[in-house]
Amino acid sequence: MVETGAPANIESFYKFTDDVYNPDLYETWKPKIQAYLDAREKNTPSEFTVPASKIPSTLDSTPFNTLKFLNESSYLSEEEKTITGLSATTLAAKIASSEYSSVQVLKAFAHRCVIGHQFTNSAMDFLITEGLARAQELDDILAKTGKTVGSLHGIPISLKEQIGVAGRITNGGWVGWLDNIPKEDAITVQVLRNLGAVFYVRTNQPQSLMHLDSNNNIIGRSRNPINSLLTPGGSSGGEGAVVGYRGSPIGVGTDIGGSIRAPAAFSGTYGLRPTTRRISTWGGVSSGKGQESVVAVAGPLSNSIEDIELFMEAYINEGKPWDLDPWCLPIPWRKVEKPEPKSITVAIMYDDGLVKPHPPITRGLEYTAKKLEEAGVNVIKFEPLETKKAYDVVHEMYSCDGNVAQKNMLKPSGEPMLPLTKWALSMGKGDVKYSITENKELNYQRDVLRKLYNDYFVQNKVDFILCPTYTGVAPVCIDDGIAGPYYWGYTSLFNLLDLPGLIVPTGLSQDPKIDLKDESYVPRSDIDKIEQDKYIPELFVDAPICLQLVGRRYFDEDVVACGKLFKDVLGLKE
Amino acid sequence: MVETGAPANIESFYKFTDDVYNPDLYETWKPKIQAYLDAREKNTPSEFTVPASKIPSTLDSTPFNTLKFLNESSYLSEEEKTITGLSATTLAAKIASSEYSSVQVLKAFAHRCVIGHQFTNSAMDFLITEGLARAQELDDILAKTGKTVGSLHGIPISLKEQIGVAGRITNGGWVGWLDNIPKEDAITVQVLRNLGAVFYVRTNQPQSLMHLDSNNNIIGRSRNPINSLLTPGGSSGGEGAVVGYRGSPIGVGTDIGGSIRAPAAFSGTYGLRPTTRRISTWGGVSSGKGQESVVAVAGPLSNSIEDIELFMEAYINEGKPWDLDPWCLPIPWRKVEKPEPKSITVAIMYDDGLVKPHPPITRGLEYTAKKLEEAGVNVIKFEPLETKKAYDVVHEMYSCDGNVAQKNMLKPSGEPMLPLTKWALSMGKGDVKYSITENKELNYQRDVLRKLYNDYFVQNKVDFILCPTYTGVAPVCIDDGIAGPYYWGYTSLFNLLDLPGLIVPTGLSQDPKIDLKDESYVPRSDIDKIEQDKYIPELFVDAPICLQLVGRRYFDEDVVACGKLFKDVLGLKE
Repeated sequence: MVETGAPANIESFYKFTDDVYNPDLYETWKPKIQAYLDAREKNTPSEFTVPASKIPSTLDSTPFNTLKFLNESSYLSEEEKTITGLSATTLAAKIASSEYSSVQVLKAFAHRCVIGHQFTNSAMDFLITEGLARAQELDDILAKTGKTVGSLHGIPISLKEQIGVAGRITNGGWVGWLDNIPKEDAITVQVLRNLGAVFYVRTNQPQSLMHLDSNNNIIGRSRNPINSLLTPGGSSGGEGAVVGYRGSPIGVGTDIGGSIRAPAAFSGTYGLRPTTRRISTWGGVSSGKGQESVVAVAGPLSNSIEDIELFMEAYINEGKPWDLDPWCLPIPWRKVEKPEPKSITVAIMYDDGLVKPHPPITRGLEYTAKKLEEAGVNVIKFEPLETKKAYDVVHEMYSCDGNVAQKNMLKPSGEPMLPLTKWALSMGKGDVKYSITENKELNYQRDVLRKLYNDYFVQNKVDFILCPTYTGVAPVCIDDGIAGPYYWGYTSLFNLLDLPGLIVPTGLSQDPKIDLKDESYVPRSDIDKIEQDKYIPELFVDAPICLQLVGRRYFDEDVVACGKLFKDVLGLKE
Repeated sequence: MVETGAPANIESFYKFTDDVYNPDLYETWKPKIQAYLDAREKNTPSEFTVPASKIPSTLDSTPFNTLKFLNESSYLSEEEKTITGLSATTLAAKIASSEYSSVQVLKAFAHRCVIGHQFTNSAMDFLITEGLARAQELDDILAKTGKTVGSLHGIPISLKEQIGVAGRITNGGWVGWLDNIPKEDAITVQVLRNLGAVFYVRTNQPQSLMHLDSNNNIIGRSRNPINSLLTPGGSSGGEGAVVGYRGSPIGVGTDIGGSIRAPAAFSGTYGLRPTTRRISTWGGVSSGKGQESVVAVAGPLSNSIEDIELFMEAYINEGKPWDLDPWCLPIPWRKVEKPEPKSITVAIMYDDGLVKPHPPITRGLEYTAKKLEEAGVNVIKFEPLETKKAYDVVHEMYSCDGNVAQKNMLKPSGEPMLPLTKWALSMGKGDVKYSITENKELNYQRDVLRKLYNDYFVQNKVDFILCPTYTGVAPVCIDDGIAGPYYWGYTSLFNLLDLPGLIVPTGLSQDPKIDLKDESYVPRSDIDKIEQDKYIPELFVDAPICLQLVGRRYFDEDVVACGKLFKDVLGLKE
């Protein structure tokens, strides 16, 4: 076992001035944490679990592949393996034709989800009883009327826990929100429920919702479904894990700096960060209420690109979220065909000039570039445009209220701040409160950057940018998360620009024998050094290599259609 | 002549703490003002003017109707009267078929525009030489290719001055910006130019761009084209005047609190405040850079509802502004047919509960309701929803940076603050600087209100709200503007909610004999008293009675289509 830990002198980077940790107050909240864990235990059907004795005690010291275990062990029936191996698109058709019942499908995913959770700690709460009741109701409706209630009839959908569910604790990863029980479902829950989706699991996320890992003081941290030493990412890391081990056909995450894309990439799934205002975020717990400099979005994770399209099309065209949330744009999801390779230009950003990607990511980019070129795609090199400026602007935006909102979420419980929370609160100028005038200037800088990138696309006739999601594959995230992902630049760039980004698997995974460390590389900066120091090839074995495909603002449909081309070109199964 | 003036004790309402007036500094800017006026004089073709002796010296003491004068006097040729009496839609067809040349059309409008300006002071600058050159170029292209360059080929379009034009002073009404000469056209100018529009006049606006009148220290104030005692409104008041006297077939204004709608209503034209992000505002001079709590929009004014549609459809579908400005949404302008009367529900807000409309407005609402009902429209009463809250929130938003941005525009010249600028700077808490946290809370309150109104529309199956634009018809605005419009609540409500609003003429106008003052009415508040005191029936003779038709967010097309129904139902010519 290789030692990892906090970057050297990490505390010298901290820019928050008061730690909100209040041990005495926190002590009074511990019974609520215990009660929450007890409720989860109670909500976990024992018939779905594997015996505790089967869970290796070495999960945090020896790589364990939960996905492989689920595929190869006999805890799941063959039928369950078949069902959970299918896409939502296929399942929806099979449910509609009564080949499978909604109950049957839910049971398979719930079973797989529960076992996977035992290895990855991916679930904050289960709603399997409620889900089965709803699935039965859907089966009854179909039997009686011959009609489905919508395009997602009977499809199990996992939800990041911060998305509010009526009558259930919704904490967002903050201990102080363990008393919060919404009276109404979040709008996205309402929309999906109306389409026939079935909810059964709510997934893990980090304290503050501002880590690219998933660790909190309520249920602790989640593990990567492919390699248990690694993080499934964050902040929608529970989703990444659950979808990664196929415990859910479609998951819903949210993203303000990479929180859908990092988890998707780390667990080897597709994941779409749509442009803002396509999927409602109303009714979620977060520190972002009223913050509109860099706006969070919600979007899907799935093992199938067709399911990403199914989700978006059904949600928007059938779900009409603008009838419930006027923030959502009343624009249809356009039907866009998979493009002809020769008709598109993909610009590849091999390096943003700030933090050099680790060898497996570079290999993934070069491999994909070659495959695309062979297929006839016009592939060019993208020279980073003002990436340092963009990094500075978006990081200042995250904290420019002086971290007041974030601290107001942490303070009620006095819970200790986790290392990556301290890092998040050190972004920009940390606790320094900007004036509204300074905030407006940041917004203007952002708009100038948006125009710069838009001009790049239009003037160069570039359709897509292909780039890393993060410095490396999923990073190690033990030792309370302090070895985790520190650099968000490859994803936060596109939050700032508000461009749609799709995570696409390459079909490759990290191989310590191929992806050797470049010992001669001299880091360009402190943050580059932090990220480079973490690359210890043998730790990352089997970690999926995924990339980020970015399109023009509101060209979400085109990005997803191009994802289908990538699937063909790269010879992926799904 | 009835005496009007500042509301009693107006200074007691002021909430700004430092007046930026700097007499010595201002003195140094006066030569630049004179140079600007001299340039305008030079840019005014003398062959288009009427002799100064024909301009009554009593314009500010006796109502003068510029529109009527232009129609009835012989300064314009019959052909010029015919051309300027046509809609842009008709003119575009006649130019495309070579019945009229672009030069011929521009000359007619430029002539009318210049004379009208002599009576109303509506123009800040003329670009007639450049416009004629462009018109000739367009005629040559058509002759040579047989094709128009776009749907607006040869159509003269007037521009609010704050919209940047390359190589020309663009001051936005601030003396301190008389040195500002943009290198590039504003995006909207680029888009319209690409469509074949011809620019020839840039129109007046108030100091601060935050009055519902148009008065500044550069060219002074504009007069209403129907009754010279009244204001043409603001901040796009020059546009209201020019379009009102038919000196332009389509004008482009901007609106953050009513600045398209008040001018359109005051001068009796149509005017559309689209939903945000449909028409670009990039490249305009304003104090709003980076402010996104309540966002300014640009939109058209015209005497023809068909022209409003022509402008929007051509600008969006042909102009594709998102290729130039990624803030613009890449969504098409939908073709929406004029609705069947029986298919729609219109909810009428007769009174917002805060400031009671003057008698002519109430008459206009009742008349229109009756006509709509007779046509088969389902007409219901709208009970104001949280109008006080909305008024407070939006007014706090305008000033929550502590007026820093506005003062930064005023300070460079040390120009004196006009009375309505002092009023604008007293909105919300005036010079009090909100924290970012407080600003976010305002944004959240806004979002709650947006949802409340959206729920109202959806749950009650209401398609449109019909309501006043302002307390009354165009108010008197002499005495340096201090008798002007103080209450913005009927328009700013929909800026806060970001709902599209169309000004529709009723065909009625104020009549002192019918629209008597209700002497028994007891004002509800200080602002109500200020507005009621201004109603002195005999001052408003002939002032047009227009109303505001509001639809759901991004249902701009439906609002415009309903405007066509109103035209029919009310028996309007255009």
